[in-house]
Amino acid sequence: MPEFSEAFSNIEGRPTMQVAALDIGSNSFHLVIARIVAGSVQILHRVKQKVRLADGLDAQNRLSEEAMQRGLDTLQIIAESLKGFEPDTVRIVATYTLRKAKNAKDFIRAAKKILPYPIEIISGIEEARLIYSGVAHTVQNNGQRLVVDIGGGSTEFIIGDGFESKMMRSLQMGCVSYTKRFFEDGVLSSVAFKKAATAAQQELELIDAKYLKLGWRHCIGTSGTIKAIVLLAQSLSEGNPEGFVTLDNLKELRNKCISAGHIKDLKLAVTEDRVPVLAAGLSILIGIFKSLKIQTMEYSAAALREGVIYEMEEQLAHHDIRERTAQSLATRYDVDVDQAKRVHDITMLVYEQCKKSWKISGREHRNMLSWAALLHEVGLQINSRGVQRHSGYILQNVDLHGFNQEQQILLSVLARFHRKKLRPEELHEFWQFDSDAVKKLIIILRMGVLLNIKRQDNILPEFTISVDEQFMQITFPKDWLEGKPIFSADLASEAGYLTALDYKLSFS
Amino acid sequence: MPEFSEAFSNIEGRPTMQVAALDIGSNSFHLVIARIVAGSVQILHRVKQKVRLADGLDAQNRLSEEAMQRGLDTLQIIAESLKGFEPDTVRIVATYTLRKAKNAKDFIRAAKKILPYPIEIISGIEEARLIYSGVAHTVQNNGQRLVVDIGGGSTEFIIGDGFESKMMRSLQMGCVSYTKRFFEDGVLSSVAFKKAATAAQQELELIDAKYLKLGWRHCIGTSGTIKAIVLLAQSLSEGNPEGFVTLDNLKELRNKCISAGHIKDLKLAVTEDRVPVLAAGLSILIGIFKSLKIQTMEYSAAALREGVIYEMEEQLAHHDIRERTAQSLATRYDVDVDQAKRVHDITMLVYEQCKKSWKISGREHRNMLSWAALLHEVGLQINSRGVQRHSGYILQNVDLHGFNQEQQILLSVLARFHRKKLRPEELHEFWQFDSDAVKKLIIILRMGVLLNIKRQDNILPEFTISVDEQFMQITFPKDWLEGKPIFSADLASEAGYLTALDYKLSFS
Repeated sequence: MPEFSEAFSNIEGRPTMQVAALDIGSNSFHLVIARIVAGSVQILHRVKQKVRLADGLDAQNRLSEEAMQRGLDTLQIIAESLKGFEPDTVRIVATYTLRKAKNAKDFIRAAKKILPYPIEIISGIEEARLIYSGVAHTVQNNGQRLVVDIGGGSTEFIIGDGFESKMMRSLQMGCVSYTKRFFEDGVLSSVAFKKAATAAQQELELIDAKYLKLGWRHCIGTSGTIKAIVLLAQSLSEGNPEGFVTLDNLKELRNKCISAGHIKDLKLAVTEDRVPVLAAGLSILIGIFKSLKIQTMEYSAAALREGVIYEMEEQLAHHDIRERTAQSLATRYDVDVDQAKRVHDITMLVYEQCKKSWKISGREHRNMLSWAALLHEVGLQINSRGVQRHSGYILQNVDLHGFNQEQQILLSVLARFHRKKLRPEELHEFWQFDSDAVKKLIIILRMGVLLNIKRQDNILPEFTISVDEQFMQITFPKDWLEGKPIFSADLASEAGYLTALDYKLSFS
Repeated sequence: MPEFSEAFSNIEGRPTMQVAALDIGSNSFHLVIARIVAGSVQILHRVKQKVRLADGLDAQNRLSEEAMQRGLDTLQIIAESLKGFEPDTVRIVATYTLRKAKNAKDFIRAAKKILPYPIEIISGIEEARLIYSGVAHTVQNNGQRLVVDIGGGSTEFIIGDGFESKMMRSLQMGCVSYTKRFFEDGVLSSVAFKKAATAAQQELELIDAKYLKLGWRHCIGTSGTIKAIVLLAQSLSEGNPEGFVTLDNLKELRNKCISAGHIKDLKLAVTEDRVPVLAAGLSILIGIFKSLKIQTMEYSAAALREGVIYEMEEQLAHHDIRERTAQSLATRYDVDVDQAKRVHDITMLVYEQCKKSWKISGREHRNMLSWAALLHEVGLQINSRGVQRHSGYILQNVDLHGFNQEQQILLSVLARFHRKKLRPEELHEFWQFDSDAVKKLIIILRMGVLLNIKRQDNILPEFTISVDEQFMQITFPKDWLEGKPIFSADLASEAGYLTALDYKLSFS
């Protein structure tokens, strides 16, 4: 198979460097700064800022001006800590709220002016994977473990063993969204607690049987919600071993809340900003304990941002998980490997000849093109008629570990338009990638596909590609095209298709 | 697995009966009347009416008033021959033109007033499968054969052996559509022939390597276009064995056309109505001979309508190919068979209690529901998040042998809405199935799924369902629901979802 990670080869060994990960969560923003020394990670600094972003999502999933402003103000503070960091040493991931918000791009556009690093929106499964990675690098257990992370808008469940995650799921319930839904008026009634816990259990119905079947020996909770609850439970009942919580503890805590009757009358030993979302978080946790029949849960401080940091370390060490993801998807969808390799090789050949003039020499451009070449025919599994649509659909909807939302969309768009009609209106708005660059990558992949339309080895002569702003010229050996009326007609059709992107193709 | 074909069990043995198949083609309508005696088919009567329906398709794929009228007038004539046929003994299939026409439903609605039988639009692959079946029952060959059928709008290619088809494809090129595209002005120039044949070869590029690789010993052409060309070629060159045509014959014929210079000056021994589309058909056939390197082609009179007749015979003999299709799809997509069986059994239980009041006792209602139960989770192969969307997408886009377009859409719609939000605006317009019946089938399948949300055997008590026009009541044993707060909440959520279809659900 193609040598995908070539782009890394200029980095020798495992350098010492400072890296930062920022998690734009639905409840808080977390910044972690770490040093990577000889392949190991030392956490240097942690900053947490309460923002409660999810609180600003309305029923139509639009994020309010105020919530955006709260977020941007916080980014302004965080920007101070990131001064002097090189672009490649900072990763910013955003979760539930920006995933949901229809106007996320407005926030991202404004954030771009404050922080000179791309904000990556990641899927729930990707969040789960990174959380597990954070825990796996921090907590050692013998045997399988269940990791639960209650966020502001979503809750992740992962069963894993060692560094390997075996089952992952992200459910749409979180301490901020459930506060809005069940405790908006601040009343801590028994009915409200019951409703919230039942709603959580309804969500869990989708996964509980499968999770219980796979099973676990240790249960670990991450996130601020679980931290606060574990601390409170600790202070309530003396008997528990350090850092553990049981269902009885949770019920006791809930009864205490109900006795208080209202959030403003709640006197508990937690930081003030945690109080408003405590009841919702507690209800969700009770639902989880019941549905998954959890005996005890332990708290771990490591979570998403640590996972991001460890992933950066892996990338520095030349391991890009996306490579493995792409390969395993190709296997699962039984891709015609010979054809994928042919398309890959020619696509890369075309890319090399275009990248400079077209200003697409970035490592990620090459990566994405290379994976798209490998995966552009996954849709054959559904039907060869309309394969481009099916490939696009599959790549848009499968879990792609290691890919953020925009990378996944790009991969899907490249596959969607690898042949036939181009529909510029379906080219999503990109922010990490320049939309002009996206068009160019599409054109290059299409050329790689078209030049292999015969699905045969060794039938192509040498050719040269030259490009200019909106223009591509492909030149074959003298007279070669003359004897190829059908292929010439294909090139003419392709030139017709490319006009939709305002590009011109000529050939001779 | 469930006993899907129970509905047939009231038909004993293989009866003698008269059946009819009508093929609403893009060039001609063909009616075949046959007698089925002790399991064998005797063709009694064939009628062919030239309609040139595809000629009425404009660039936006709207069928013109005039073309529709031509079609309806022809149906009026055919209706005479069908007088006295019982509903179950007539099958009407429509191909390319109605497949493409955005206003096909206008035609079908008008046709319903003339013929009291449903018009089934079938996919290109289904057309190919039936054509092959027609040939397989008529022509005996030793070894593999390639069957080619040039229609008015599409051309089918099938490689098969005996009764088994091994490779099928339908390409969008036909004698009527290519006449519009390349010979509209009637000029028979060498350039026009070349352009048309090259366009055909461009289409063939998608399949030629695969077909050549699989190979064949005999090549058989069906359809009026090939019949006319074989006859003409015969009259031109004496040397050929009876009923065969070679590339040289085709070229000779083409040169004769070019010499004539214009369609109106063409003097050939074919029926007058064949002349206008001859040049297009000839160009396509030349393209096919070249791309598939065909030496000789033989003509066979059997085609789509004969395939439909043989399929009816099979159905009478209790073999429904759709059963095999559904089973094999379930295997290919690695469906959780235990869960599918649970959902199937409960769905059927619910169906039995609803069918009379809801007037959905038809054999096809039961069939569709049963296959939908088997296949509603094929989308898990893409992702468990949004599985209903993925199942709907897959079932809409895979080849489903034996299913006509509307049956496939119904299967896809049932899977699409097997849980979560209902979107009435996405319920397509049906004509074979009543759209109210479709809603009822959706509700029944959802109940089958919901009652198995736990994915476990033997946890459901006895329950009764009673229905009234827009209403369903489900009753469990006394007090049973009391101890099931989560399941009760699920039922309440379901009642909420069903309001979108204007149905009411109550439970106790």
